[in-house]
Amino acid sequence: MSNAAYDRLKVRFARIATLGEASAMLHWDAAAVMPPGGGEARGEQLATLAGLGHELLTAPEVAEDLAAAAAEGAWDEANLDLMRRAHLRATALPTALVEASARANSACEKIWREAKAAADFARIRPALETVVRLQRETAQALAGATGLTPYDALMDSYQRGVTAADVEPVFAAYEAFLADALPRAEAIQAARPAPILPEGPFPTAQQRALCQELSAAIGLDYTHARLDESLHPFCGGTPTDVRITTFYSEAGFEKSLLGVLHETGHALYERGLPTAYARQPVGEAAGMAAHESQSLIMEMQACRSDAFLSFLGPKLHATFGGGAAPYAPANLARLWRRVSRGFIRVDADELTYPAHVILRFRLERALIGGELSVADLPGAWNEALHRLLGITPPDDAQGCLQDIHWHDGAFGYFPSYTLGAMAAAQLMRAARAATPGLDAALAQGDTGPLLTWLRTHVHGQGARLGFQDLLRAATGKPLDPADFTTHLTERYLTA
Amino acid sequence: MSNAAYDRLKVRFARIATLGEASAMLHWDAAAVMPPGGGEARGEQLATLAGLGHELLTAPEVAEDLAAAAAEGAWDEANLDLMRRAHLRATALPTALVEASARANSACEKIWREAKAAADFARIRPALETVVRLQRETAQALAGATGLTPYDALMDSYQRGVTAADVEPVFAAYEAFLADALPRAEAIQAARPAPILPEGPFPTAQQRALCQELSAAIGLDYTHARLDESLHPFCGGTPTDVRITTFYSEAGFEKSLLGVLHETGHALYERGLPTAYARQPVGEAAGMAAHESQSLIMEMQACRSDAFLSFLGPKLHATFGGGAAPYAPANLARLWRRVSRGFIRVDADELTYPAHVILRFRLERALIGGELSVADLPGAWNEALHRLLGITPPDDAQGCLQDIHWHDGAFGYFPSYTLGAMAAAQLMRAARAATPGLDAALAQGDTGPLLTWLRTHVHGQGARLGFQDLLRAATGKPLDPADFTTHLTERYLTA
Repeated sequence: MSNAAYDRLKVRFARIATLGEASAMLHWDAAAVMPPGGGEARGEQLATLAGLGHELLTAPEVAEDLAAAAAEGAWDEANLDLMRRAHLRATALPTALVEASARANSACEKIWREAKAAADFARIRPALETVVRLQRETAQALAGATGLTPYDALMDSYQRGVTAADVEPVFAAYEAFLADALPRAEAIQAARPAPILPEGPFPTAQQRALCQELSAAIGLDYTHARLDESLHPFCGGTPTDVRITTFYSEAGFEKSLLGVLHETGHALYERGLPTAYARQPVGEAAGMAAHESQSLIMEMQACRSDAFLSFLGPKLHATFGGGAAPYAPANLARLWRRVSRGFIRVDADELTYPAHVILRFRLERALIGGELSVADLPGAWNEALHRLLGITPPDDAQGCLQDIHWHDGAFGYFPSYTLGAMAAAQLMRAARAATPGLDAALAQGDTGPLLTWLRTHVHGQGARLGFQDLLRAATGKPLDPADFTTHLTERYLTA
Repeated sequence: MSNAAYDRLKVRFARIATLGEASAMLHWDAAAVMPPGGGEARGEQLATLAGLGHELLTAPEVAEDLAAAAAEGAWDEANLDLMRRAHLRATALPTALVEASARANSACEKIWREAKAAADFARIRPALETVVRLQRETAQALAGATGLTPYDALMDSYQRGVTAADVEPVFAAYEAFLADALPRAEAIQAARPAPILPEGPFPTAQQRALCQELSAAIGLDYTHARLDESLHPFCGGTPTDVRITTFYSEAGFEKSLLGVLHETGHALYERGLPTAYARQPVGEAAGMAAHESQSLIMEMQACRSDAFLSFLGPKLHATFGGGAAPYAPANLARLWRRVSRGFIRVDADELTYPAHVILRFRLERALIGGELSVADLPGAWNEALHRLLGITPPDDAQGCLQDIHWHDGAFGYFPSYTLGAMAAAQLMRAARAATPGLDAALAQGDTGPLLTWLRTHVHGQGARLGFQDLLRAATGKPLDPADFTTHLTERYLTA
């Protein structure tokens, strides 16, 4: 049975979520439209909203209500569990630690921009040591409250329901797969004709219209969404007012278009969350790995499929004109499925991307566990990259300084990228099995059948299930990396 | 001396103001960029922020701190007074009355849109009666707390430091002035050559660039501002991130351009508020009449002056091309200083605009005082307009249904428009007297000398002084409508 305490908690958590919505809109504004002079005040606004949200979550009456609350039915029971979890995590950390971390992260992130530009690890080392020390304390405090290991407690901040013990063997198996697959994929690629590059320039206005049209075509309702521009593309906003961004270069349309399809996948997840639990913990997305599975199932699984490329090629040719050859579906496939060993994660292809994540997962786990010191990070990075991809970065800017995450205090996030990619393959396989016309529809540019399946099995589930349980309910098994390697084998290892 | 209680209050009021900043940005977003589907969630976000702000303002410890607080120096004393005033007004109204009013205003405003479209006063009458009844109760509650009369207590919500007793004789004198001036101005206008209309179309992109360039030229720093589009132009945002909007029609540039100059006046006020008291009550603008004085001093006093038109004409011609005759400064003066008796306030010229405000001031005062019933409003309106301008609206859509204000519960606001116009003339006269090169600069498109004077005498004063005291400090006298009628006489009654 539900009771008054649970009802009070629902009102309180809705209020907290509404503050979060306001923050999400202000974050979008800061990235997409804010004049530079607004930054200082914006920081104050976001800090005030975050502070009020924290006060609402940690007020003394919350503990009393949580002790007295009862909920009935799978959804409300899960909701109450998630309330307990949020309260536990918020109260586990001493205010002094939260504030010290926020200051250290902010200071480190500023220095990182200079250190990266100068490829000078020594410049960031002291600030990063402080960040890591405070992250270790945070991990230990969260571990004490949750019963997880320290690193798992951090990972749990981004994706509930999956542990390092789940991830480790999956990543080890991928490393073995890659050692065999990468040279074979390179050989197959080398034997094929070189892809023909579409000839630009590609006017921004045309790219913008195309991105908006295609994201609408694959399911984004623009009465509840916007597409804008920002330096780093993202999906923000709220479920009924979702804001995606991209970045246009007139030299090429590949990055903006595929980026928009990626962000549209995130946006469709937000749009499909269960409205009956809007603004409740159980009505949110299931986590960052689950979120990445939805961006990648659109970008990598659906929109780079042979079926969809056969629809997309003629549309691109009609949009940009010029010769037809670059827009032939087979040429687009060669262009957008190139494999190459590179230093930079965000530029990596589908096959080698996990290597970058495996490297980071192992190093951040060792940093949090105390087995690796910050001083030894550059050497450990270069050694690990050499072992995984056989290449060595020429400097730390292309090595351990390339990502913002650690320098902004985000430890435990990286696995989400590859867990998402693997889950996307697993979900796509299940969706295909359950939906016979799925690829025929994709060949018409119609993601409707796929989206219908995702609405039921992923989006509409909200945060009711953790990562492994969500996959179990949707596909009949927990994370199974074989679906991902099967997908990669079909795409990259078939001559 | 300052003390701990006052310091605590400053922290609290800064937090309240920061929530207000967040709301201001969300209001801008809703008007300028939000997709329609975001409206419902936006309402929740704004209500939550308003509710939290109200809780912070009315928390029990505020009364204790206000009782114990001491402040030293004119600025902090005024700040503490304004804190007391805000708390007094917030606690004077029972929560039930505030909520009933919010609901009644929202319901009436929705019906008003239909009633106006149908020119059907009967449709809105019951909802408006509810709004008026609740506004009377509100006025009485505020009067009881503040010692003002009920109508003054409402007017005080929008502009502190001026009463109906101040306004009444000023408006009566203007009525007498207008009865003589209007037919004379019409006769002079009829004797002049008809203005030549610039030939369009005027591409939106050109208008936008021109509006941005001119608003920057008259002082708006776009590292702290944006210019966007919305159905109803406004100035919003925050002092370091001010957002102005306009509405473009390719058929003409007059409305968008003069509208942007008007909103730029508002924006410059916000930009010039005293940063040492940012987010404190004394660091805000002095009120709506003061704000309107700053938009009108830019739009009406500076930018429609002969000097500025001599700069603007060639610039407009260079922008839009075509024949030179429409852009001759004398022709622009004839175009932008046309006098005509019309039914619609927002379309009214500088000379007849006050008649529309005088009418509303008298009627809303009678509605709040109980001397006029809602049922008698249409008749009273038509009678008053006929007495003031000699014309009778063909229907209520062009009569008492034209403005949103009353139907949204805003009583006591209307006088601000004309108090602002009068104050603008008075301030301009004082600025000219103190600044010999002011008009020579305007002839170069340079509002710098005017802005310097306004920064010192108006913007930089924040909310330290009420309306009459602000004018006294800046011009040596309280509101003196003779400066406005002198300005009008020079502009409209000199053949």
